[in-house]
Amino acid sequence: MIDKLIEKIQKTGAPIVVGLDPMLKFIPDHILKQAFVEKGETLEGAAEAVWQFNKAIIDQIADLIPAVKPQIAMYEQFGVPGLSVFQKTVAYCKEKGLIVIGDIKRGDIGSTSAAYATAHLGKVKVGNSLCTAFDEDFVTVNPYLGSDGVQPFIDVCKEEQKGIFILVKTSNPSSGEFQDRLIKSGVTAGATGAQAGGIFFEDKPLYEAVGEKVAEWSAQCMGANGYSSIGAVVGATYPEQGRILRKVMPHSFILVPGYGAQGGTGKDLIHFFDENRLGAIVNSSRGIIAAYQNENYAKFGPEHFADASRQAVVDMIADIDQAFAGVGR
Amino acid sequence: MIDKLIEKIQKTGAPIVVGLDPMLKFIPDHILKQAFVEKGETLEGAAEAVWQFNKAIIDQIADLIPAVKPQIAMYEQFGVPGLSVFQKTVAYCKEKGLIVIGDIKRGDIGSTSAAYATAHLGKVKVGNSLCTAFDEDFVTVNPYLGSDGVQPFIDVCKEEQKGIFILVKTSNPSSGEFQDRLIKSGVTAGATGAQAGGIFFEDKPLYEAVGEKVAEWSAQCMGANGYSSIGAVVGATYPEQGRILRKVMPHSFILVPGYGAQGGTGKDLIHFFDENRLGAIVNSSRGIIAAYQNENYAKFGPEHFADASRQAVVDMIADIDQAFAGVGR
Repeated sequence: MIDKLIEKIQKTGAPIVVGLDPMLKFIPDHILKQAFVEKGETLEGAAEAVWQFNKAIIDQIADLIPAVKPQIAMYEQFGVPGLSVFQKTVAYCKEKGLIVIGDIKRGDIGSTSAAYATAHLGKVKVGNSLCTAFDEDFVTVNPYLGSDGVQPFIDVCKEEQKGIFILVKTSNPSSGEFQDRLIKSGVTAGATGAQAGGIFFEDKPLYEAVGEKVAEWSAQCMGANGYSSIGAVVGATYPEQGRILRKVMPHSFILVPGYGAQGGTGKDLIHFFDENRLGAIVNSSRGIIAAYQNENYAKFGPEHFADASRQAVVDMIADIDQAFAGVGR
Repeated sequence: MIDKLIEKIQKTGAPIVVGLDPMLKFIPDHILKQAFVEKGETLEGAAEAVWQFNKAIIDQIADLIPAVKPQIAMYEQFGVPGLSVFQKTVAYCKEKGLIVIGDIKRGDIGSTSAAYATAHLGKVKVGNSLCTAFDEDFVTVNPYLGSDGVQPFIDVCKEEQKGIFILVKTSNPSSGEFQDRLIKSGVTAGATGAQAGGIFFEDKPLYEAVGEKVAEWSAQCMGANGYSSIGAVVGATYPEQGRILRKVMPHSFILVPGYGAQGGTGKDLIHFFDENRLGAIVNSSRGIIAAYQNENYAKFGPEHFADASRQAVVDMIADIDQAFAGVGR
């Protein structure tokens, strides 16, 4: 799956992914009104509005980008009708030739992780039939439970030619609370670190230890282009950590959230990439899908919200291009 | 919500929760066959079988126990029809007077965690209506993203009188990979720990640092009985860690998975409780719902699988009682 993603990135010249995270406040009134007329001010009505909103945006931007990343929480809040639209959105994007990264951040003990992996990347056996549930191309995975929580996802990636991005250093302000805690990586003599009775402790943050595990796991799913289908999530808001983790996980693509609304800029992103402009894919969500609400794109108006989204994609690609140009790539 | 849980535990004399984690291999053939005749070997057929299986078991055990814990992954693997049965199961259990702990292990950045909290514990605003999506009483939460990923759940708990259990030390074999890593808690003079140039480093495992945060968070939702609606998950398979964490989080109820099939026994559980037999609730999933497949309950046969489940609940309560008796409680 990583080879397919790289091919699409090279074809579009856009190492970006658009986050389809539709909150109702992003959806123009005329769409909400129509959906509520048809289905009421209900979960079904909300789900219908989300679907119409997504569809219009996807139609306008699909040719510019390699991938989308629907955030399942935004659908889950509308219950079963919402998850039905999540599934429809995944299928529609795949029909349009887009790669779909399900932002689900699941992770559990072995047998339960296996069920999540089946739900989102694999096939479930029902009697003698094999059925698919949500069928994304990639999903995001939470590593807190360790290897036996992650391996079932990797197993399904191998079987089904799919991929995952494992949370390493997330983009949010309090990500450091646990992820930055310095851990003892064992006692080594002569290494740098705090001296303790003539023996040296080498300390490193937890995210780096998680990154090292990702590097290990990535060996199980190597593609043809030097990258693995086992990638990582590292927030654009932490460029210095991105620089370190790019080296710790040389074969892992990095999914980079936090660009735009969360504060990351084009120049923050450079360190996440390799010298061939590969190795990372940058997400923007509300900066694209709610572009018409931003003063830079206000001229489009709510009626033409999807055109505003298209322009915002064009501008994001240019911003990243400019950042590359600044370092001569 | 914690007061309601404590009241139900005291009324039933059973500090246990039954995990409704229905894999198809647990479901007797006659139920599968009937569901497939009606709805085909499809996601709908699988979901129907799960629903009939759950309903029969709930009917047989509801009077014995305070709470159930459906594991959403087992429903999610059957896609939208599966999640529809998750929702029906939650509603049915609540009708029967059971407290429902949604084992969802969600956790994300702030705005996304807020959407998950809304989906599972709160109400979502659609136009001028307030709608509920899944509406569990408690959910499990993954802490890897730190405070801003957890706080939105706590906020909804306060508004809606609900509760959460935060993953601290999980029951699976590789939980130690990150959760047991020793972290530096800062430099303190004169404390116990490894000596470093005359200054002492006090090291502790990550799970203890997470437990300390849970203790902090728990202050926001204290009930009338000395316990908070902000609890923790600590696996029965790690009794020594349970003993430590019981002290680190004196006001947090501990949800204890890993009893039975995963290897935890009655006597492993004692340290998770306080001296009043409170402070913990022990989960068993396949040990109860698939009891008829265990040789101890084989006499019931697949036709009477729900009676086997009832007997397994009775035996589990007796096992825990015996463990308490062994330490004179």
